[in-house]
Amino acid sequence: YKSSTEDTRSSTPQVQSVFSPLDTFPRRHIGPSQESAERMLQALDPPAKTLDEFVKQVLPADILSTKDMKVEGPMPESGSMATDQGGYSESQLIARLREIAGENKVYKSYIGCGYAGTRTPEVIKRNLLENPAWYTSYTPYQPEISQGRLESLLNFQTMVCDLTGLAISNASVLDEPTAAAEAMTLSVNALPAARQKSPNKTFLVSHLCHPQTIAVLESRAQGFGIKIVVADILENDSTQVDEVGEDLIGVLVQYPDTYGGVADYKALSEKVHKLKGTLCVGTDLLALTLLTPPGEFGADIAFGNAQRFGVPFGFGGPHAAFFAVSEKHKRKIPGRLIGLSKDRLGDKAARLALQTREQHIRREKATSNICTAQALLANMSAMYAVYHGPAGLKRIAEKVAKMTQVVAKGLEQAGLEVRKPVAFDTVVVKKKGAHDFAQKIAQLFLTNFRIIDDETIGITLDETVGKKQVDEILRAFSTDIMDADELAASIESVPAVPEALKRTSPYLTHPVFNSYHSETELMRYMYHLQSKDLSLVHSMIPLGSCTMKLNAATEMAPISWPEFANIHPFVPANQAQGYAQLIKELEADLSEITGFHSTSLQPNSGAQGEFTGLRVIRKYLEDQPGKKRDICLIPVSAHGTNPASAAMAGMRVVTIKCEHSTGNLDMADLKAKCEQYSEQLGAIMITYPSTFGIFEPQVKEACRLVHEHGGQVYMDGANMNAQIGLCSPGEIGADVCHLNLHKTFCIPHGGGGPGVGPIGVAKHLSPYLPGHPLVANVGGSKAIAPVSAAPWGSASILPISWAYIKMMGARGLTHATKITLLNANYILARLKPHYPILYTNSQGRCAHEFILDTRKFKDTAGVEAIDIAKRLQDYGFHAPTMSWPVANTLMIEPTESESKAELDRFCDALISIRQEIKAVESGEQPKEGNMLKMAPHTVKDLLRSEWDRSYSREDAAYPLAYLKEKKFWPSVARLDDAYGDVNLFCSCAPVETIDGMTGSAAPMPT
Amino acid sequence: YKSSTEDTRSSTPQVQSVFSPLDTFPRRHIGPSQESAERMLQALDPPAKTLDEFVKQVLPADILSTKDMKVEGPMPESGSMATDQGGYSESQLIARLREIAGENKVYKSYIGCGYAGTRTPEVIKRNLLENPAWYTSYTPYQPEISQGRLESLLNFQTMVCDLTGLAISNASVLDEPTAAAEAMTLSVNALPAARQKSPNKTFLVSHLCHPQTIAVLESRAQGFGIKIVVADILENDSTQVDEVGEDLIGVLVQYPDTYGGVADYKALSEKVHKLKGTLCVGTDLLALTLLTPPGEFGADIAFGNAQRFGVPFGFGGPHAAFFAVSEKHKRKIPGRLIGLSKDRLGDKAARLALQTREQHIRREKATSNICTAQALLANMSAMYAVYHGPAGLKRIAEKVAKMTQVVAKGLEQAGLEVRKPVAFDTVVVKKKGAHDFAQKIAQLFLTNFRIIDDETIGITLDETVGKKQVDEILRAFSTDIMDADELAASIESVPAVPEALKRTSPYLTHPVFNSYHSETELMRYMYHLQSKDLSLVHSMIPLGSCTMKLNAATEMAPISWPEFANIHPFVPANQAQGYAQLIKELEADLSEITGFHSTSLQPNSGAQGEFTGLRVIRKYLEDQPGKKRDICLIPVSAHGTNPASAAMAGMRVVTIKCEHSTGNLDMADLKAKCEQYSEQLGAIMITYPSTFGIFEPQVKEACRLVHEHGGQVYMDGANMNAQIGLCSPGEIGADVCHLNLHKTFCIPHGGGGPGVGPIGVAKHLSPYLPGHPLVANVGGSKAIAPVSAAPWGSASILPISWAYIKMMGARGLTHATKITLLNANYILARLKPHYPILYTNSQGRCAHEFILDTRKFKDTAGVEAIDIAKRLQDYGFHAPTMSWPVANTLMIEPTESESKAELDRFCDALISIRQEIKAVESGEQPKEGNMLKMAPHTVKDLLRSEWDRSYSREDAAYPLAYLKEKKFWPSVARLDDAYGDVNLFCSCAPVETIDGMTGSAAPMPT
Ligand SMILES: Cc1ncc(COP(=O)(O)O)c(C=O)c1O
Ligand SMILES: Cc1ncc(COP(=O)(O)O)c(C=O)c1O
Ligand SMILES: O=C([O-])O
Repeated sequence: YKSSTEDTRSSTPQVQSVFSPLDTFPRRHIGPSQESAERMLQALDPPAKTLDEFVKQVLPADILSTKDMKVEGPMPESGSMATDQGGYSESQLIARLREIAGENKVYKSYIGCGYAGTRTPEVIKRNLLENPAWYTSYTPYQPEISQGRLESLLNFQTMVCDLTGLAISNASVLDEPTAAAEAMTLSVNALPAARQKSPNKTFLVSHLCHPQTIAVLESRAQGFGIKIVVADILENDSTQVDEVGEDLIGVLVQYPDTYGGVADYKALSEKVHKLKGTLCVGTDLLALTLLTPPGEFGADIAFGNAQRFGVPFGFGGPHAAFFAVSEKHKRKIPGRLIGLSKDRLGDKAARLALQTREQHIRREKATSNICTAQALLANMSAMYAVYHGPAGLKRIAEKVAKMTQVVAKGLEQAGLEVRKPVAFDTVVVKKKGAHDFAQKIAQLFLTNFRIIDDETIGITLDETVGKKQVDEILRAFSTDIMDADELAASIESVPAVPEALKRTSPYLTHPVFNSYHSETELMRYMYHLQSKDLSLVHSMIPLGSCTMKLNAATEMAPISWPEFANIHPFVPANQAQGYAQLIKELEADLSEITGFHSTSLQPNSGAQGEFTGLRVIRKYLEDQPGKKRDICLIPVSAHGTNPASAAMAGMRVVTIKCEHSTGNLDMADLKAKCEQYSEQLGAIMITYPSTFGIFEPQVKEACRLVHEHGGQVYMDGANMNAQIGLCSPGEIGADVCHLNLHKTFCIPHGGGGPGVGPIGVAKHLSPYLPGHPLVANVGGSKAIAPVSAAPWGSASILPISWAYIKMMGARGLTHATKITLLNANYILARLKPHYPILYTNSQGRCAHEFILDTRKFKDTAGVEAIDIAKRLQDYGFHAPTMSWPVANTLMIEPTESESKAELDRFCDALISIRQEIKAVESGEQPKEGNMLKMAPHTVKDLLRSEWDRSYSREDAAYPLAYLKEKKFWPSVARLDDAYGDVNLFCSCAPVETIDGMTGSAAPMPT
Repeated sequence: YKSSTEDTRSSTPQVQSVFSPLDTFPRRHIGPSQESAERMLQALDPPAKTLDEFVKQVLPADILSTKDMKVEGPMPESGSMATDQGGYSESQLIARLREIAGENKVYKSYIGCGYAGTRTPEVIKRNLLENPAWYTSYTPYQPEISQGRLESLLNFQTMVCDLTGLAISNASVLDEPTAAAEAMTLSVNALPAARQKSPNKTFLVSHLCHPQTIAVLESRAQGFGIKIVVADILENDSTQVDEVGEDLIGVLVQYPDTYGGVADYKALSEKVHKLKGTLCVGTDLLALTLLTPPGEFGADIAFGNAQRFGVPFGFGGPHAAFFAVSEKHKRKIPGRLIGLSKDRLGDKAARLALQTREQHIRREKATSNICTAQALLANMSAMYAVYHGPAGLKRIAEKVAKMTQVVAKGLEQAGLEVRKPVAFDTVVVKKKGAHDFAQKIAQLFLTNFRIIDDETIGITLDETVGKKQVDEILRAFSTDIMDADELAASIESVPAVPEALKRTSPYLTHPVFNSYHSETELMRYMYHLQSKDLSLVHSMIPLGSCTMKLNAATEMAPISWPEFANIHPFVPANQAQGYAQLIKELEADLSEITGFHSTSLQPNSGAQGEFTGLRVIRKYLEDQPGKKRDICLIPVSAHGTNPASAAMAGMRVVTIKCEHSTGNLDMADLKAKCEQYSEQLGAIMITYPSTFGIFEPQVKEACRLVHEHGGQVYMDGANMNAQIGLCSPGEIGADVCHLNLHKTFCIPHGGGGPGVGPIGVAKHLSPYLPGHPLVANVGGSKAIAPVSAAPWGSASILPISWAYIKMMGARGLTHATKITLLNANYILARLKPHYPILYTNSQGRCAHEFILDTRKFKDTAGVEAIDIAKRLQDYGFHAPTMSWPVANTLMIEPTESESKAELDRFCDALISIRQEIKAVESGEQPKEGNMLKMAPHTVKDLLRSEWDRSYSREDAAYPLAYLKEKKFWPSVARLDDAYGDVNLFCSCAPVETIDGMTGSAAPMPT
């Protein structure tokens, strides 16, 4: 990897000629300057002479890449080519991206199908979507420094509960079809235990659900052995439900349905409940301002896409899907749930509730693997509701509904046949030669309709439509002159549905939805929330396994360009050529980086990538001769999503031990298990470098062993940041690997999402990459069913990763990897004299992260990892990953974006905390009520007149000098988790203790 | 004004038809909802029944407009027309603006002439330029809640001092030519007193200065009786300097000069100094990284445009001009100066230094009227330097210089004649038929050169240029194939100037310029500074006369569009058609709003508007028969810039009294003065509503009187927010009025600028509106010399005001005026039981602002206005305008953007403070060391273990309940002004006490 040595100068632009651009990016992305890097190499224990010598101490020799990675970069003056040199400068990148964006055509899209046009209020766009204080924050696992987004997500939940009429909502799921899948698996869980095992268990799905929903359900049903039956559910008084009988899991309907109709599901609901099944309803939040909410006609679960609440199409995402359940299912709800609790001072405070469920406990018993969700988008949608309020939302809904009636009436007047009822925003009309018609209309009016079949067109209206658009729609179908105003005047009832289906109950009555309706008020509300949250704009977030690196402004800029934002996911291919180009390049670059043949960008989280990769493997294995291979080997150290995904893919999980002394895979155990299950061995899932932060020397051997026994190797690429340019999953011997673009490739964490979890696969697996029911040329020739609503998942954030790769170039990416390793080892070296380090390799090095072993302090001082984590807040830092993968330890990952100065500040903080622990150990400070136990300290706490603590106010607030200049104050004191656990939402019944809880109750990294 | 009554429903969109847009703007811009407004009307003292009844109680009947204002608005479906109805919706506005932007052509511009292409780092653009926390803050007169921008402006000053080699820099002036004018007038001030009066005093200006600089100097010289001689200064050993002899004020040179050359000015400097004259140098910060700085060859003053440090062309502005002087002139430097002082706790803190100079004291003795400057742009340029650091800047400069050498060499090789020396970034080359040539090149290469004359072309390079551009430039002149790399290789010395002119001294050695070179570090640095500053994102800023209203995101969005940002001010007219359209519409709308015939957008601040308006008046009067009319009547209550501007326009100021009891103009005094000066009466300057916040009933009579005596009426439009749609300067009888677009029309204050101060004039004055030397069709047929560098001043921020007007529409604007009056009167009514109110009209009403009379507390409790102002910080509010226009009082202006909730919070705070004062009055609290005297309180102060105060920590921090939830903490304690005044920059000699200081030492509103 020759790029390495030349690359030590990356802190100054590589001026090859006087004409070379000076706005080069790697030196901006990478924290330490060249001089700092050299000083850090000196400071290692033992010191290293050069960066390359150091790298060789970190990576096993046999995995180091033998060839130089190549990434498409700019040619000296025009054009571009694959090169092992540097990438685009920032301005070159923007120029190139403007060209690419220009290839997308922004037409009006009335395609509907789960997506509708919307107006993002500029005040939300600027101050939330484009604001790093919102988008660089992490999942709010540290509630004391996350109250802002916790409150906003609570608003999201309240909004969903109010509009659906259900008791409990989570803080978003990935998209509408995966929400449907979650509804299905929750329904299985809700069955009496005996029935859960039934080989014929059946989920009835209305044929009026969105096609992509049905397709994704198919993909998810398999692993659980669920039979999906798509049918006209209401036909013959729903006798089909009775026919399924005790095999019934539940019924899924869409409301309004994909063709815009609604029906009364009361009778169905009773029937389903009589059979102990679950009624699941896919729905639309805007429609629910006018229609009877699902909770009022007996739905157990309602879900849908909150996209039309202010989040643009984005060619498919990301958007927040919502998911709500009735009271009785509240302990089964998947994903993240915000609850109200109180803090040490008794003040109200929000937190992630029920964090001890799902992947953290259930692992292979999980029915959901959702981890990263859509927090940022959920916040946008919640703010949209806060800004419009109930009256504003209703006004929008009524406008949409009335315009839809106008279109329906106009089309009827023109002699066309319109499907009835037209319940809200969608008109379905008969039109012969629909394909040709739609194509012609696209050309003439720059307008897209939905082609349902060659005789049927769908038209879905939205808040961006006005008279001009309605006129155009009518003109597209008829040359008659029709007066839209006259049509409008003749319409009586909006929505045009029976009284029983009209909403009468109030919603969004909480003050938060009725206070911030001027721009000034909303702006201040958003800033007020923001001021409570610690994010990358404040300090390093050293979360192991999470790779909280810079999300550069140049990477983020294109997100808001209309050419990327305003494209419906199902537009004709010729309108999305810019996206196609960008996707092609990103797939190619990621394949090069991972050493694989092909890449699919469809999965919209790491966990989804796992599930997709395993399904691809399973499909491939099915096509091979021999037995069913459904054993999945997973090391004990694996992230909870690994076994969960394996289980969801229908695999049986077998655990592989790790060596106690080194943390490495126990090769003997692996060998034994391989041999034991040789005939059934499907796959192994390994994370590399391991979740303990070590480049295990025997990884190639492990791959070889599994292959020898007929299994495939799945690599969890969460730690890919440690590999790029130095080694690759493909070269190491893996067959599949998912990447977290929201870790390694600069998509911001957004306070808990969005994410993208693409998978790279070796050649033999590429035919199985997932397809899409509505869009051609997606996935491989033997494509598995889709895992996401949209063909390329969360397409609109792909420019971020694309831009990162293009600006870093092969050389910059490789250098970043080296510095990420150096940064971690530098912290390790500074902390080693003060704390035990759990694992290092034979040369005393860690990879890009390492585990600080804080377990002994429990005995010596009664101090636990959580106390150190909370005390770090007083020092202005977010805690490292707590108690994962090892309980009561801290895992530290600095990333390459942090400068030496920041690393030093962080080390100083941890060393100072060590002194504070010493004071307890020595008895100078008491075991209870000391600074660590009382941490974090809020201003309010410290300002109380009475002061009877064993330490001073100043020592609590300013233990180090830099804090007097730069202090971040937690907005609440330490959360009372016990109280929160038993008082979900402050008023609910105690949460039943879950059996079989093992390991730590702490949150997982994302 | 019929729009009024219908308009009470403006809090909900006016749904005329189902198709009407719902994203209407007035209800977002205006704070109070309809229900709130009704409750507020009830709460007035006495209550008012309707908004319109209330308006009639506020405005004198004889000035109420009789016709409905009309503003161009959207037609129902397409097109637009002047209408008295509502305006564009937010999305309609953006769509229309995109069309207009599309009419601007973004070509490469090598025109130079004081402007150069630049790259705004995206991280600065996003987190500073596009961040309301930066752009909505006010001039940092309250240092305790402004340390962020104070530090940044200090960085700007340090940067300027270092690069110019001079001791003292201010925190920006308006543009390069007005900086030259400031240099000229400072030079006059620096003369021995006797020589200041010389009728032949002469300022020698090099013919190699930028043409717009020379033109603006002309406009400024007149009022001061200065003779400007433009000449080849160095010719014959500068004998011309000797010839001027004792009449010499100073000499102005440009370095590098407008044609790109440099010369050695050492000898000149000695000659000038021997004559006690001042050497002024217009210069370029980027060039100074390579060239000997002016301070090292004897310059007394250096100034220039900091634009190329990261601020786009913007069709002329706004950009920060810089201004630096040698140690000996430090007390004469105009504009705002940041100095380091300390706070009550002895901690280092920055503040506006020497605030007791210039307009605040000198009034008619002033030689500068600068008030609003370019703070936001100065911050951008400072951050650009912080990000690049000394080495980065030098790299950029060297690249530019070398490319320029390449171009020069290439042109010479092609046989063209190139002017020598080519010192930095500009090549001047002989080219016959330059006009036609340039036009053809623009078409062929989308590239602009400077046409110096029909035989001479100028080419100025910049950091955005690369090899492709250099190739194109060469190709434009020659069809020879030239290899730019070869040319580059053959160049030896950069810059190509004598050794004596090469810089050897270091610069930007301060850590701040050497620490934040990664994006993460810079982002955190900017956020850290931001976190110290209170702005509109936190709470209302009730500064009387400053109109701190909402700066809406939709208004701000276009600022960063390349079609507005990347246009050089001197491009051919056909490339700026979008700007032309927007300017035409804005001029028309402002003329309609003010009731005038024409508007000039050229002045880039209110004070500049005053100066321009007075010069227009003087020119007009000169063209009238009769005596010289140079008396300007100014009420005592006028803003300090009024007399300063009058003096600068060469007028003699005569003061008009105000009635003690009502604050109104003393009509008897006015009449007497009119009669006394009848023959010489030039103008009266009045502010309306008055600076006391009253619609004076006799304003029309005053206008009549002045006109009768041959004078013109100048209206200071700072308070225009109280008039729009209800009355107008034109109808009232004024002849000229300036507007502050940065008050009334939503341009954000930016922490002290930018601003736009257009003037509207009656028909007879319109021929005199200012022109421009380089751009045709600017100004009237008898245009006065320009007052700004660019034909339309700060063009790139005009879209903000345009958007505001277009989105509000005539009706929204009128309604906003009513609510601004209501908001002020509501606060008045709530505070009246607690505080004396200085003036109200006969019906007990104020206009859009009013004065809280806090003078008596000095006697009763030892409490002064400043103590209340500082204590308000503890309540999370910025102080109202302090001690202006009346010493030791507070002037409150809420604007229409504040909601009732926010007004109530503010009233609660002031009422609570009144209780705190009562506690002192009653002896419950001591006169010294009480909460008011110790305010504001920082966390650091309150956390000290020792506590011996007469109040508790909690009472200091949380006097009202809302503060526990929403608290803004000042970052330093009260500034020690006495210390700062004697320790300018912590180390300088004591500031001499200035005689004749009258009135308050408090800062002025801007
Ligand atoms: C090792 C590992 N695997 C998988 C995941 C799951 O990724 P996601 O949150 O994108 O679903 C994570 C996230 O923390 C992880 O750290
Ligand atoms: C009444 C009045 N006139 C003039 C001005 C000067 O305006 P500017 O600061 O834009 O120069 C101000 C600004 O505060 C003002 O309040
Ligand atoms: O829930 C987790 O993010 O691991």
